[in-house]
Amino acid sequence: MNIDVKGKSQKELKQLSQDIRDRIIDVVSRKGGHFSSTLGAVELTIGMHYVFDAYSDPFIFDVSHQCYPHKLLTDRWDDFETIRQFGGLSGFTKPNESVADYFVAGHSSTSISLAVGAAKSIKLKNESRVPVVMIGDGSMTAGMVYEALNELGDIKLPVVIILNDNEMSIAKPIGAISKYLSKILAGKSYQRFKGKVDSFIKKNMPEGTTYIAKRMEEAMKLITPGILFEEMGVDYIGPIDGHDLEEVIDTLQIAKDMNKPVIVHARTVKGKGYKVAEGQHEHWHGVGPFNVEDGAFVKKEAPKAATAVFADALINLASKHENVVGVTAAMPSGTGINKLMDKFPDRFWDVAIAEQHAVTSMAAMAKEGFKPFITIYSTFLQRGFDQIIHDVCLMDLPVVFAMDRAGIVGNDGETHQGAFDISYLRFIPNMILFAPRDNKTLELGLDFAYKLKSPSAIRYPRGAFSELEYPSTAFELGKAEILKEGSSKKLFIGYGAGVSRAINTEALHSEDITILDLRFVKPIDKKTLVELSSKYDDWYVFSDSQKQGGVGSAILEVLNEENVKNVNLKSFEYEDIFIDHGDTKKVEESLGLLPEQLVKAI
Amino acid sequence: MNIDVKGKSQKELKQLSQDIRDRIIDVVSRKGGHFSSTLGAVELTIGMHYVFDAYSDPFIFDVSHQCYPHKLLTDRWDDFETIRQFGGLSGFTKPNESVADYFVAGHSSTSISLAVGAAKSIKLKNESRVPVVMIGDGSMTAGMVYEALNELGDIKLPVVIILNDNEMSIAKPIGAISKYLSKILAGKSYQRFKGKVDSFIKKNMPEGTTYIAKRMEEAMKLITPGILFEEMGVDYIGPIDGHDLEEVIDTLQIAKDMNKPVIVHARTVKGKGYKVAEGQHEHWHGVGPFNVEDGAFVKKEAPKAATAVFADALINLASKHENVVGVTAAMPSGTGINKLMDKFPDRFWDVAIAEQHAVTSMAAMAKEGFKPFITIYSTFLQRGFDQIIHDVCLMDLPVVFAMDRAGIVGNDGETHQGAFDISYLRFIPNMILFAPRDNKTLELGLDFAYKLKSPSAIRYPRGAFSELEYPSTAFELGKAEILKEGSSKKLFIGYGAGVSRAINTEALHSEDITILDLRFVKPIDKKTLVELSSKYDDWYVFSDSQKQGGVGSAILEVLNEENVKNVNLKSFEYEDIFIDHGDTKKVEESLGLLPEQLVKAI
Repeated sequence: MNIDVKGKSQKELKQLSQDIRDRIIDVVSRKGGHFSSTLGAVELTIGMHYVFDAYSDPFIFDVSHQCYPHKLLTDRWDDFETIRQFGGLSGFTKPNESVADYFVAGHSSTSISLAVGAAKSIKLKNESRVPVVMIGDGSMTAGMVYEALNELGDIKLPVVIILNDNEMSIAKPIGAISKYLSKILAGKSYQRFKGKVDSFIKKNMPEGTTYIAKRMEEAMKLITPGILFEEMGVDYIGPIDGHDLEEVIDTLQIAKDMNKPVIVHARTVKGKGYKVAEGQHEHWHGVGPFNVEDGAFVKKEAPKAATAVFADALINLASKHENVVGVTAAMPSGTGINKLMDKFPDRFWDVAIAEQHAVTSMAAMAKEGFKPFITIYSTFLQRGFDQIIHDVCLMDLPVVFAMDRAGIVGNDGETHQGAFDISYLRFIPNMILFAPRDNKTLELGLDFAYKLKSPSAIRYPRGAFSELEYPSTAFELGKAEILKEGSSKKLFIGYGAGVSRAINTEALHSEDITILDLRFVKPIDKKTLVELSSKYDDWYVFSDSQKQGGVGSAILEVLNEENVKNVNLKSFEYEDIFIDHGDTKKVEESLGLLPEQLVKAI
Repeated sequence: MNIDVKGKSQKELKQLSQDIRDRIIDVVSRKGGHFSSTLGAVELTIGMHYVFDAYSDPFIFDVSHQCYPHKLLTDRWDDFETIRQFGGLSGFTKPNESVADYFVAGHSSTSISLAVGAAKSIKLKNESRVPVVMIGDGSMTAGMVYEALNELGDIKLPVVIILNDNEMSIAKPIGAISKYLSKILAGKSYQRFKGKVDSFIKKNMPEGTTYIAKRMEEAMKLITPGILFEEMGVDYIGPIDGHDLEEVIDTLQIAKDMNKPVIVHARTVKGKGYKVAEGQHEHWHGVGPFNVEDGAFVKKEAPKAATAVFADALINLASKHENVVGVTAAMPSGTGINKLMDKFPDRFWDVAIAEQHAVTSMAAMAKEGFKPFITIYSTFLQRGFDQIIHDVCLMDLPVVFAMDRAGIVGNDGETHQGAFDISYLRFIPNMILFAPRDNKTLELGLDFAYKLKSPSAIRYPRGAFSELEYPSTAFELGKAEILKEGSSKKLFIGYGAGVSRAINTEALHSEDITILDLRFVKPIDKKTLVELSSKYDDWYVFSDSQKQGGVGSAILEVLNEENVKNVNLKSFEYEDIFIDHGDTKKVEESLGLLPEQLVKAI
C-alpha cells in the first residue's frame, strides 16, 4: 500500500519521518544493509513525494543506496523485511520491483545523465512531468556528472537535482569539489541576501529593462555560493537544512516552479535519527546486523578476508620497495587501501569516485618508474576500461590492477557482481591476467606482480578464501600448477577462488581426479594444457567469472590452436545473465555452483 | 636534429614559426593529416619549448593531433615527410618514436590525469621538473578532465595547463563549458584589473596580515573570469593571445614560476597561417591532400562510404518513425549524424566528448519509449563501457549502438583501431551483436535494429563496403545466411566486412568453397553451425576484430557446447597486438590479411 504523503499535515509528515526511521533502524539492525545515507535522506525523500509524483515524474536516485525511505513510501513497507535477502527486495532501485523505481542504479553518478534523457523525452512527448534527482556529494566527483551538467546547462530543460550533501560520501570527502561545497555551506547568508535582491529586481524592474536586470543578475552571481553550478548554466538554491521538512518542501516547490534545471543544495547528517551513527564516516555506510541499544555490531567469527590479506601483503611490499604506490577510487576501507594511506600517506591516495582518472594518473606514475597498484572492485573498474587500453596497455606500463570483489558479491547484487573482468581484460594486448587460489598465494601474487614489466590484473573474491592444504608455490609467468594427480580420466581446472571449488567438488566425487590450478588466464599455459590433453578427456572448469569470453573460452582457444580434438570441456562459469542479489551461498546454489550440485552435474 | 628554441631571438622565433607552418602546409597538402589544430598551436608549442624542456619536463599533448610543431622541433623535421604513412611517423605523440614524446594519446582528455601522475612522481623523486599540458577547449567536455582537476585542485602540485581555446574542438563547440569559455574571452579587462590589485596587495600588505590579504583575494576571485577553475582550486591566467609569441612566453614563464597548478587560457585561431582554413570548423580538422593555392581537395573517385549509407538509412528510418532519436559524441560528420541533426534538430544531438553521458542519457530515452541510435566510433565507445553494462543492458533497453570505424582505421593507427568491440560487448547479457556485409544489408540492418526490444550493436567499417553480388535478405534474429554452397570440404565464415574478404579469398582459391555470412555473433546461429559441421571439416573465419574473445572464439564456444569434434577452425582475426597506423591496405598486408595472402595461408 502506498503512503499518501500529499494528504498529510506537517505534523503527520513529521510522525511519518519518525516511523520510516524506526522501520529502517529495526530492519537493518536485524538484517544489515545500507544505513547512514538512507537515514539521512528521510525528509528529502518525503519532500520529493510531497511535491512530485513517483508514478509519473521520474524519481532518479543516484547509486540508490539511499532509496529505503522511497521503498517504504511506495508499497514496500511490509516487504522491506526482505531487503537485500535472496529472493527479496533489492537494496537499490529496481523497476522490476515497482513502477515507482524509474531506473536501476548501483554504480554512482549516472543520475543526471538519466535526468537529461528523461527531460528530452518529456519535451518530445509534450508532457509536464519533471525529472527529480537525488545525488550525494560523494557522487559529484565522477566525470559523468560533469558531462551531464555540461549538456543540461546548455539545453536548460526542467530538472530538479537535490544535492544531498552530508560531507562524506562513503569514505572521507575528497578533492576540490568537496572543499568547494563546504565553503558554500559557510555562506548561507549570501543566499538570503540574493533572495532579497532577486525579489527587489522582480518588483522594481519594469518590463523591457532586461539589460539592467541582466546586469544585476550577473552581479548577483558573483556572490552566489553556487557559482560553480551557475557558471555551468544550472540554477542553484541553497544550502537548506535537509532535515527541516517545511524548508525542504517549500524549496522543492520553488525549484519545480522554476521550470528549468535547478540544483537544490541540502545539508543533511548521515545516520540522522540514530545517535550512534550520526555524522559517522564509512563505518555506518553499509552494515551487518547490530544491537540497536548501543550500536554494537553482531560479531561473527569469520576467517581473514582476502581484502585484509591483500592490504597486509601490500604493506609488506611497500615497506620493502619505495617505488610501490597505489590508488583507490572512493573505497579505501573496502579495498584495504586505508591501511596503506595511513602508513604511507605520500604514496597511496583515494582519488574519489574517479576510476578513469585513477587509471590514467597511475599510468603516468608507472612511466616515471613507480609501481602502481590500482585497487578497485572488479565491477567499478569497468569505468576505467578505455583508460586501461589506451593509457596503460598501449604503453605496456607495469601497472597492477588489484581487483577486489571478483565473482559473486552477495547482497549488493546484479549491479555489483564481479563477473566480467576476465572477459573485458583478456583480449587487451600486453595484459597479464592471473589469480591466487588462497591467502598465501595472494601474498605471493603481489610479490610476483611487483616484478612484472607489463600491465597485470589480479583478482580475488569478496570475503575469505577457503584455506587449502596444498603447499604454496611462487608464481611463474604463464605457468599453471598441477595440485594433485588422480587416476580418473577427468581433469578439474580451477582459476582463482574456483580452485577451492574444484577441490571441494573433487572431495565429494567418487573418482580420484587430477586438479590443475590454471593460475594464468593470460598468458595461458599452452604446454601444460596440451600435455594434459594426452591424459585426460573430460575437462571441467571452475571459475567465478562470466562464461562468454572467460576462462573456459580461453582454454578452448588454446585447444583449437593446438589442434587438440579429444577434450570435452564443460565450464562451470556464470551463464549469460545478470546475477541476482542475496547471500552468496544461496546465489551460488541458485546457479548450481555448490560442490554438492556440481558433483551431480559431472 | 633538435631545433634550439631557447637560444633564439624573438625575431628568429617568429621566422621559426613561419618555417614550421610552411613545412606543415607543404607536407599535409601532399600527404594529408591533421591540419587546422596543429597550425593553430605553433606559437604555443614554441613557447613550451622556450620555457620548458621537452627532454625533462613531461610535455603532454591532449589527443595529440596538434603535436606536429612539437615533432618538427624535436628531431623529426625530415622524417615529417612520412607522417601517418605506414612505417612512418605517427600522427600522434609516441614514446617509441622520440623520448620527447612523453605519452601516447589519441583519445581525448587524458592529459590532466597524466600530469597529476607525473606531478606526484616528481614530488616523490624530489625533482624540479614541471608537467606541461596542452589541451584544446573541445577536450574540456569529457568527465575525465573534471576528475583530474578535482584531485589537482586539492593536492596543488605544480602543473601548467595550456588551454588552447579555438572555440570549436573538431566540430562545433557544445555545451555550457564552451559558452562559459566564450564569456571569459569577452572579459579580458578583468584580468588586467586583477593583476593590478594582486600587485597592490603584495606591495602594501605587511607580513602577518594574512587574514586581510585572504579576504582581498577572495573578493578578487569574484571578478576573475576563470572563477570556475579557481573554485576548483586551480589558478587561472588569461585569456592571452596564443599567437603572440612574446605574450605566450612571458605568461608561461609566470605560470612556471607560480609553482602550483595553473591554467593558462590562450585564444588561438584554428588553421592560423593558412588563409583558406583559418577559423574553419570541422572541414579542415583532418584532411586529405589538397591544392595549396586554393585549398581545393584532391578529388578521388570513391564509392559511397558506409558512414554515408548509414546516415541516409537512418534519415529514412527517422522519417518513418517519430520515436527514433540519436546522439553522437563530438563526431557529427565523422558518423554522419550531422545530417540527422540538420533534418531532425529536436531528435538528434551532439553531446560533445562525453561518451558516458551519451550512453546513459539515451538509456533513459529508451525507457521513455524512444528508439535511440548511439553513433560512436568503435574505439571511442570504449569510454561508455560501464554505462553499456549498467545503464543499458541491465535494464534490457532497446538502444542501438551504431559503431562506425570498426576494424582497421588506417592512418590514425593504434589508438583508433576498432578492434575490440566484439570482445568487449559479447559477454554482456541481453546484448545482440550483428553486422552487415555491404551497403544494402547495412540499410536492412537498421530496419532490423529498429524492431528489436533489447540492446543491440551493429558495426561497419571506415570507408566503403565492397559491392557484393549476392542478393540482400532481411535480418532475422540469430540467423546466419549461407551465401554460396560449394563442393569443397572447406567452409568460409565471414562477419561484417569480413564477408567480402571471404568472398574475395574464395574467388582466388582453386576449390569451390561454401560461404556463410554469420550475421550474428550474438545470439549466434547454433543450429546452422552444427548442421554445417556435418558437411565441412575445415572452417576459416574472416572478421575485422580481435581474435581473443572475438568471432572465432564465439564459434568455438558453440562447437564445444554442442560437442562437435570434427571441425578444424582457423580464424583470420587480429592477433594479440596493437595494430600500427598506415594505409589500410598496407596495414592489412602487414598482418597477412589480403585475399592473395590468405589464399596461400589456407
